[in-house]
Amino acid sequence: MPNIDIDEANSIALSRIVESEPVLVDVVPASQAIEGLRDGMLLHAGPPIDWDRMCGPMQGAIVGALRYEGWAKTEAEALDQASGGQIAFHPAHHFSAVGPMTGITSPSMPVFVVENRRFGNRAYCTINEGLGRVLRYGANDDAAIEKLRWMQNTLAPALGEAVRHSGGIELRPIMAQALTMSDEMHQRNVAATSLFFRALAPHLARTVASSADYGSIVDFLVANDQFFLNPAMAAAKCTLDNAANVEGSSLVYTMCRNGTDFGIRVSGLGDRWFTATSNMPQGLYFPGYSIADSNPDLGDSAILETFGVGAFAMAGSPAVAGFLGAGTFRDALNYSREMGEITVGRNPNMAVPNLDFQGVPCGVDVRKVVETDIAPVINTGIAHKEPGIGQIGAGIVRAPMECFHQALEALAERLAGG
Amino acid sequence: MPNIDIDEANSIALSRIVESEPVLVDVVPASQAIEGLRDGMLLHAGPPIDWDRMCGPMQGAIVGALRYEGWAKTEAEALDQASGGQIAFHPAHHFSAVGPMTGITSPSMPVFVVENRRFGNRAYCTINEGLGRVLRYGANDDAAIEKLRWMQNTLAPALGEAVRHSGGIELRPIMAQALTMSDEMHQRNVAATSLFFRALAPHLARTVASSADYGSIVDFLVANDQFFLNPAMAAAKCTLDNAANVEGSSLVYTMCRNGTDFGIRVSGLGDRWFTATSNMPQGLYFPGYSIADSNPDLGDSAILETFGVGAFAMAGSPAVAGFLGAGTFRDALNYSREMGEITVGRNPNMAVPNLDFQGVPCGVDVRKVVETDIAPVINTGIAHKEPGIGQIGAGIVRAPMECFHQALEALAERLAGG
Repeated sequence: MPNIDIDEANSIALSRIVESEPVLVDVVPASQAIEGLRDGMLLHAGPPIDWDRMCGPMQGAIVGALRYEGWAKTEAEALDQASGGQIAFHPAHHFSAVGPMTGITSPSMPVFVVENRRFGNRAYCTINEGLGRVLRYGANDDAAIEKLRWMQNTLAPALGEAVRHSGGIELRPIMAQALTMSDEMHQRNVAATSLFFRALAPHLARTVASSADYGSIVDFLVANDQFFLNPAMAAAKCTLDNAANVEGSSLVYTMCRNGTDFGIRVSGLGDRWFTATSNMPQGLYFPGYSIADSNPDLGDSAILETFGVGAFAMAGSPAVAGFLGAGTFRDALNYSREMGEITVGRNPNMAVPNLDFQGVPCGVDVRKVVETDIAPVINTGIAHKEPGIGQIGAGIVRAPMECFHQALEALAERLAGG
Repeated sequence: MPNIDIDEANSIALSRIVESEPVLVDVVPASQAIEGLRDGMLLHAGPPIDWDRMCGPMQGAIVGALRYEGWAKTEAEALDQASGGQIAFHPAHHFSAVGPMTGITSPSMPVFVVENRRFGNRAYCTINEGLGRVLRYGANDDAAIEKLRWMQNTLAPALGEAVRHSGGIELRPIMAQALTMSDEMHQRNVAATSLFFRALAPHLARTVASSADYGSIVDFLVANDQFFLNPAMAAAKCTLDNAANVEGSSLVYTMCRNGTDFGIRVSGLGDRWFTATSNMPQGLYFPGYSIADSNPDLGDSAILETFGVGAFAMAGSPAVAGFLGAGTFRDALNYSREMGEITVGRNPNMAVPNLDFQGVPCGVDVRKVVETDIAPVINTGIAHKEPGIGQIGAGIVRAPMECFHQALEALAERLAGG
């Protein structure tokens, strides 16, 4: 396979990211949207993993999901099913989906349906449950499950109706505008959430304002500054899937974590995973918790850094740097500058005012990561390592270099015709 | 009047700004809120001025207001009344009110009622009409008047009901949060408008969602990124009025423009106005217009710079610098640094992430303006100089130095017992 110009291949992959037009077109149950998702099967965050190697919060979320679906009546029954091979576990990434933290997605859970109007593909992500003891962080008590049922039966049908009434809500303009409003869209989504609510409100007003549940639906939508995280993740997934499978490209189109392993996939290497042990985030903890309680890095939300926002866009979000214990204004600028050294280029559709409207650094290049020894940086929530507890902080983490070394070797072999 | 410590007086005045807690408590007709506002009387922006010296857009807005109130049937009749001494014109500032651009406020126009929960006083501002041919820029055609009637009869009662249901919407937290989201809150209010709508929405949902007009009310509230300008102005007025009348203080508690004159008032000099000719803004023009079409600097909205935001907070809003033709990210930082040289101190409740969470420069000190020869800078909309046309651009402008020289002389005389 000679004569492949890696730079040219990377340009093609990057252009597919830049040109993508993700549009939220519906909210429906996962079983209806995601082909192949059937009873007895759950999707999870990160690269493939068996039950035995799963971290505490992921196992906790699975127990919760089995009870939520009614496949298990009790925690004990759920544990039996999950550990006994009765449940099939698959990466969400294998089904055009992504999930924050544990990423557990079961058939009855509603998902955002995001369509790429430029390329025609779709991607999916569950609805953000808010803060506190929530399933995505491994909580699985009755209150967490009750909230999921309310989301399924009350919230999601209303959202779906409003989104369909809108004819589709374009996400790229919201994301671009939010980047000019100090969101980095991973750990800070207050602007995007507010803009999204403004975009949705006229349609909610015309479709569900007469419902008895309207007040509680509005309460839920305005209460959680991170609400937009999940549509943003689906938009990034729907974008990056088009950067896959460009022959010869060293651009990373997936970075994700299952809480045990960190995994990447590279455009020119198809669906092959390169994995290494997940690092421990460094950050700020809620009162009473410390790094000793932390689970290693977890979740598909690193799709945002893969897309060029999150820690890559920290320059535009000095407020998030403080929130994550990642330093000052100057440090925030430096993270974005550093990530510019390991990316294929910039995304002019995602411009940062603090960088004089330069686009975000976009498309991690496996070659540059290895050459510079600079690992991608990721802004992340921190989960307690035991199941059932939930979020205990937020911070930053580096992708493990080993994945990139493996991938570069594999790319060299493939380009050599190996 | 010896032994007055100006620095100490300024500290007192500044602390009253910092400690203020403006809360939106109601939306009602101006005649109901503003004591002394009666039929045959109009409030206007800026220092006192007679009809003959008023600029084109202010005269245009007055013609529109007289037709809107039904005091005149035709433009000709309105011009007769206004020029014939039948209408009393007063600065809004004399009635605890402020108005953007022409600032024309008539008894039937609804106003935001903002209460200072720390000091008990109230301030008022009309509701932002949106962009295009609107009264505050001097437009006065049937469409402009029809929109005002819809605001009076449909929008304002709904807003009032929702605000009363909320028990009051605290504005300081919204303003502080918006400053961390790249608003400077004079020419950029997209974050504050979005946050305000999020705060109001649960109450609208419970008070007016069943109304047939609910859809159009929501449309209006989400359509205009500058909607929050007017509550912000009322909040700043409600705050700064408490910084007035501190004996010996050289802090400027009013800066405003009527389109002909720029006026300031100084804490230690009571209600006395110091005026000079309004400067011409420098900025970017809508297609087809140029500085030759511009009206001189106009409006009470410089209350925002008086409070420490607007151009004073440009460091946090590099996006507005581009919008105003005021330069790059570096220039935005420099405006805030420069204003720090002429202010009494900083407002820690209004922190800017791009300044490592330093508070905005707050409280223009007449002495420092004269010593440094640095005039306060203001972000502003630009009105066409002829009545009936409206906004033609946006830019920045400097306050005329002459006001500050006059005021410093008067302060010296007063402190000398003159």
